[in-house]
Amino acid sequence: MQTIPVGLVGVTGYTGMELARILAVHPILKLTRATSRAEAGKPLKAIYPFLEGFPAGDVGISAPDAADLAGSCKLVFLAVPHGAAMDYAAELLAAGLKVVDLSADFRLLDAGIYADWYGLTHRHPQLLPEAVYGLPELYAERIKTAKLTANPGCYPTSVILGLAPALKNGLINIIDIIADSKSGASGAGRKAATGMLFCEVHDSFRAYNLGKHRHTPEIEQELGKLAGADITVSFNPHLLPIDRGILSTIYAKLTRPMPVEEVRAVYAAHYADKPWVRVLPVGKLPETRFVRGTMFCDIGLVVDPRTNRLIVVSAIDNLCRGASGQAVACANLMSGLPVDAGLNLAPMMP
Amino acid sequence: MQTIPVGLVGVTGYTGMELARILAVHPILKLTRATSRAEAGKPLKAIYPFLEGFPAGDVGISAPDAADLAGSCKLVFLAVPHGAAMDYAAELLAAGLKVVDLSADFRLLDAGIYADWYGLTHRHPQLLPEAVYGLPELYAERIKTAKLTANPGCYPTSVILGLAPALKNGLINIIDIIADSKSGASGAGRKAATGMLFCEVHDSFRAYNLGKHRHTPEIEQELGKLAGADITVSFNPHLLPIDRGILSTIYAKLTRPMPVEEVRAVYAAHYADKPWVRVLPVGKLPETRFVRGTMFCDIGLVVDPRTNRLIVVSAIDNLCRGASGQAVACANLMSGLPVDAGLNLAPMMP
Amino acid sequence: MQTIPVGLVGVTGYTGMELARILAVHPILKLTRATSRAEAGKPLKAIYPFLEGFPAGDVGISAPDAADLAGSCKLVFLAVPHGAAMDYAAELLAAGLKVVDLSADFRLLDAGIYADWYGLTHRHPQLLPEAVYGLPELYAERIKTAKLTANPGCYPTSVILGLAPALKNGLINIIDIIADSKSGASGAGRKAATGMLFCEVHDSFRAYNLGKHRHTPEIEQELGKLAGADITVSFNPHLLPIDRGILSTIYAKLTRPMPVEEVRAVYAAHYADKPWVRVLPVGKLPETRFVRGTMFCDIGLVVDPRTNRLIVVSAIDNLCRGASGQAVACANLMSGLPVDAGLNLAPMMP
Amino acid sequence: MQTIPVGLVGVTGYTGMELARILAVHPILKLTRATSRAEAGKPLKAIYPFLEGFPAGDVGISAPDAADLAGSCKLVFLAVPHGAAMDYAAELLAAGLKVVDLSADFRLLDAGIYADWYGLTHRHPQLLPEAVYGLPELYAERIKTAKLTANPGCYPTSVILGLAPALKNGLINIIDIIADSKSGASGAGRKAATGMLFCEVHDSFRAYNLGKHRHTPEIEQELGKLAGADITVSFNPHLLPIDRGILSTIYAKLTRPMPVEEVRAVYAAHYADKPWVRVLPVGKLPETRFVRGTMFCDIGLVVDPRTNRLIVVSAIDNLCRGASGQAVACANLMSGLPVDAGLNLAPMMP
Repeated sequence: MQTIPVGLVGVTGYTGMELARILAVHPILKLTRATSRAEAGKPLKAIYPFLEGFPAGDVGISAPDAADLAGSCKLVFLAVPHGAAMDYAAELLAAGLKVVDLSADFRLLDAGIYADWYGLTHRHPQLLPEAVYGLPELYAERIKTAKLTANPGCYPTSVILGLAPALKNGLINIIDIIADSKSGASGAGRKAATGMLFCEVHDSFRAYNLGKHRHTPEIEQELGKLAGADITVSFNPHLLPIDRGILSTIYAKLTRPMPVEEVRAVYAAHYADKPWVRVLPVGKLPETRFVRGTMFCDIGLVVDPRTNRLIVVSAIDNLCRGASGQAVACANLMSGLPVDAGLNLAPMMP
Repeated sequence: MQTIPVGLVGVTGYTGMELARILAVHPILKLTRATSRAEAGKPLKAIYPFLEGFPAGDVGISAPDAADLAGSCKLVFLAVPHGAAMDYAAELLAAGLKVVDLSADFRLLDAGIYADWYGLTHRHPQLLPEAVYGLPELYAERIKTAKLTANPGCYPTSVILGLAPALKNGLINIIDIIADSKSGASGAGRKAATGMLFCEVHDSFRAYNLGKHRHTPEIEQELGKLAGADITVSFNPHLLPIDRGILSTIYAKLTRPMPVEEVRAVYAAHYADKPWVRVLPVGKLPETRFVRGTMFCDIGLVVDPRTNRLIVVSAIDNLCRGASGQAVACANLMSGLPVDAGLNLAPMMP
Repeated sequence: MQTIPVGLVGVTGYTGMELARILAVHPILKLTRATSRAEAGKPLKAIYPFLEGFPAGDVGISAPDAADLAGSCKLVFLAVPHGAAMDYAAELLAAGLKVVDLSADFRLLDAGIYADWYGLTHRHPQLLPEAVYGLPELYAERIKTAKLTANPGCYPTSVILGLAPALKNGLINIIDIIADSKSGASGAGRKAATGMLFCEVHDSFRAYNLGKHRHTPEIEQELGKLAGADITVSFNPHLLPIDRGILSTIYAKLTRPMPVEEVRAVYAAHYADKPWVRVLPVGKLPETRFVRGTMFCDIGLVVDPRTNRLIVVSAIDNLCRGASGQAVACANLMSGLPVDAGLNLAPMMP
Repeated sequence: MQTIPVGLVGVTGYTGMELARILAVHPILKLTRATSRAEAGKPLKAIYPFLEGFPAGDVGISAPDAADLAGSCKLVFLAVPHGAAMDYAAELLAAGLKVVDLSADFRLLDAGIYADWYGLTHRHPQLLPEAVYGLPELYAERIKTAKLTANPGCYPTSVILGLAPALKNGLINIIDIIADSKSGASGAGRKAATGMLFCEVHDSFRAYNLGKHRHTPEIEQELGKLAGADITVSFNPHLLPIDRGILSTIYAKLTRPMPVEEVRAVYAAHYADKPWVRVLPVGKLPETRFVRGTMFCDIGLVVDPRTNRLIVVSAIDNLCRGASGQAVACANLMSGLPVDAGLNLAPMMP
């Protein structure tokens, strides 16, 4: 099969790094452009020595240029901060490129909600209706024909996949949902900051942004669509001293008492043809290491009869499934490839 | 001041190790006996090389013997598993010793609940009424005159201290309380087990025993006393890849909307004369590193107006505050010493 | 291309786990048998939940049986301890199978040296001459026709690749070579042992077996062959609090003063057609993360003119390159496949 | 006993943090001034929440001012970068204060060597003769009367203490000494830098500055004095993914074959009255965790008869023994206190 040239705008962060890792061995999508103003002029392997020996490592980093990207790529990944991504997207779409945006700029359908949570006025609201939320289990068909996909946030991926079957099938009340999520440190990005130094993170654990993390409206938007009703979620993130991985412990009230086996059957049926979502046997719980470096979302289910509560535990790799791997899955679909091209990855254990 | 000889039954686990660390530099309590059948005959420093140079390191390990302990100590710490501790306690009390039991054997007032959760019939239920729950902030006066203190579990310490002011002052509903707790690996004990090997824990995160951990009834007992009503809690533990530390994120519904400053004022007043509980300024959240190696319990408070929920984040060191340091605090009180003798420890940072 | 069925004897250790990880996505070699007496009767995914969804995960674990293996496989990997492996190898070879032995049983050509270092009399010394040392950069041609390959130890892989060009080209004295090696914890195996618990390894560092590690004679044998002379090496291992990775810092006296660029040119020429060995640019040093999960051996070179010493730093992944990946490379060659079939792996970063 | 007021210039780095930790519970030395231009105006606990509840936490951070320091302190710790420290020292000494400088500015007796390695012309060379190298085991008597002590570097502390008895007693050749040292990440300082982010350090290991680290001349100066001859050392540092701790593996040729017991006897005699140096029993090796948070230097000794080499393994806590604890020991001596006042610390285990 012929290869398809792709570009990567914003290569210096962890999502850019992870895209480089995945594309380095992708059978069809070939990295031909990588951009960064700060690192322009170097080959990619100069900043990522682990890419020595891969053709992707020899790609020269350039300053972002829409015409150049349009002339050399079919599709571009945007791994730049929100606020900056929207302008790149508009420009690249206008130049005829397909775009997978890893930022938050096109995830929220409502520009007003975007303004509320991100403190920015959206400069290209006309693009919002055509952006597809890039979660393959929910939107694979629409992604196939999309020009612009809005890659889901890492936390939302774990929470939405964890609750979709329960909400879709009316197993839980839509009020009082709490997601207590824990993420590895790569989720905080690669910007030099004292608070993210090794000695500040290692052998410690902390919560942050309780009740006000920017992934909240995105979770509520998608859960609301699944439930067919407005949903307010209590979403509460924490920082783990691990490189990769998100584990969300999600609490919800059952609409009626039911054995965990019944819940599991609903989940298993819902995800029957979605091989990346692994609904664990009753009695088993996910661990972030079991999904490390992959597209899997492992889901464990517990019913607590003392409180009539369903507890869903979902685990993903925040960088792969929660960001760059998912972006490649979208790019695969948008390019007419199988969703899992280049993504049939075995977890790194240990 | 004269020293007071104390003994330690069960020296090979992490709580025994932590007791040895604290007692090695305690100004009054002096370790004179340390027992372990498996290691009998060696000096303590042979199994704990870090004690070389401390008199405690020269204590010879012996097989446990009540008469010998009674002849050489005033007080004994029991750092043996539940089930085994109750017999030691009965024997040592009968021999005239004071006992601080770090196991669960005397924490639950109701032997039936003990049997339900621990699968054991209590063999010394007559001692339950005289055992004092060893949480100094709640029971300091009773601990001073106790012969037997039941040292609280690590998780319960974090949850009870985190909720006491709210329950005592009616700030929260007593239903729908959820404690999502995360503990460092030392909480799992020091027994050789594949699942606790470095490569199985490092760079991973997992939940376990959701809704059925044995610390649940202990939490419910003490919260119920504070609230003056029966309380059912959803308590859910997780395993962190850190050595020490517990952080509990506790969710409860406010009885009425109130600003977080008001909640904080209640907490600050409640703990005004309890220097080990540090109620953080509004906007600050605890981190396990800030309490590492100490008796502190740091408490952060968040009100989420979107869901009318109070979120309490409490952090302790599971080994020091959650086990051995708290045991020394009890021993201090039982020995007529200031509660913080030998426990004025600064957090190890980083 | 048709698949080739392979078996794995001894599946419960880290090398077995890593073989399972690699074979799960190998395009040609298909795992059809996995043996373990302790776990017989379960599917592989029952002990390795991360394999859920891969055909390899559905392989049933069985007790090892030569006839069964011979009937169902073309080649067998032995991931059992030294001492046990030699009998399996003899039996499986007799049954017509090809064997890749990951233990030390066939690495040393001299059964007397084996006896000295391993404290065991070799029970199948007649097989030693036909066993090929499975280091592809040195012995690819012989491996292609071998029935039995002795997979190199992890430390020796890092030291031999690090010194081969220097010794082959006479750059260094053959006396006074020191290898100060540091390995991740997976190198210690997966047996439950208190000393390898998370809390005993994490946030610590130690040396062990200085001057007497069993990998020493293997290193000396191969370095001696490269130099054409007997070599005595000071080999000194250390335990790192990481999952995977070996970094060896190797000290040797230059035979004559020379600039580092000259040394690098010799190394680059030596490894010109060996893509897995990446000789870094002058001024760059390897890091274990840059080779994580891969077959790469990264080599950094420093000349210290103050002491006329060459310092070679080599980094590999001890589990992949240092054990199971290298075993698969041998199996590839023995099966007529390209050496890198299924091994074109990008490093996991971060 | 009366307290002694001390000041800390440069509070925001890890050595400043560690000084704050130690001084927070020191019985005599009381922190009364803490300076940082960037954080001036805040109480110390605002930047170090772990100090909440300690009087030291209430000290207000101010901009450094010699007159103010002279009016409020008897002694000042300089925890600022080399180059900046020399001017502070000169100014504070002139104002009548005693100074403990944690930087490298006064460690080297020869301003020319300082210029060679640090690339700076010394601006106060007249102070070099009166500065005392602050290693208590070597210079306790001189430190007692010093106005200015130059606190040793972390690596030099581990190497000098590791070799002193061997050099003083002629056990080893003075040529061909190699120190392969490994340090925890706090040694790299607290400046925000991408390369020191959690995800860049955790689960990795690397060497750096091989043969050219700035601690080299300091090691050579002190080893040379001990040996009574010029010594050139090959000093080679590495970065460990741990918070604290240095372990140095030091290789030297024995001047004549001798059993390890004889070497150990020499070491034990040398350090007989130095309780912080613990010469381990033959067969035992140090681990960084056994000295965590303390002043101990643990030394393990191995003789490798195959190569006639002595291998010394020394372990310290780089922040406490290797920097701030040693500074407090010097301050104790300079203030007429026992060297171990406030430093009788038990290792944090685990």
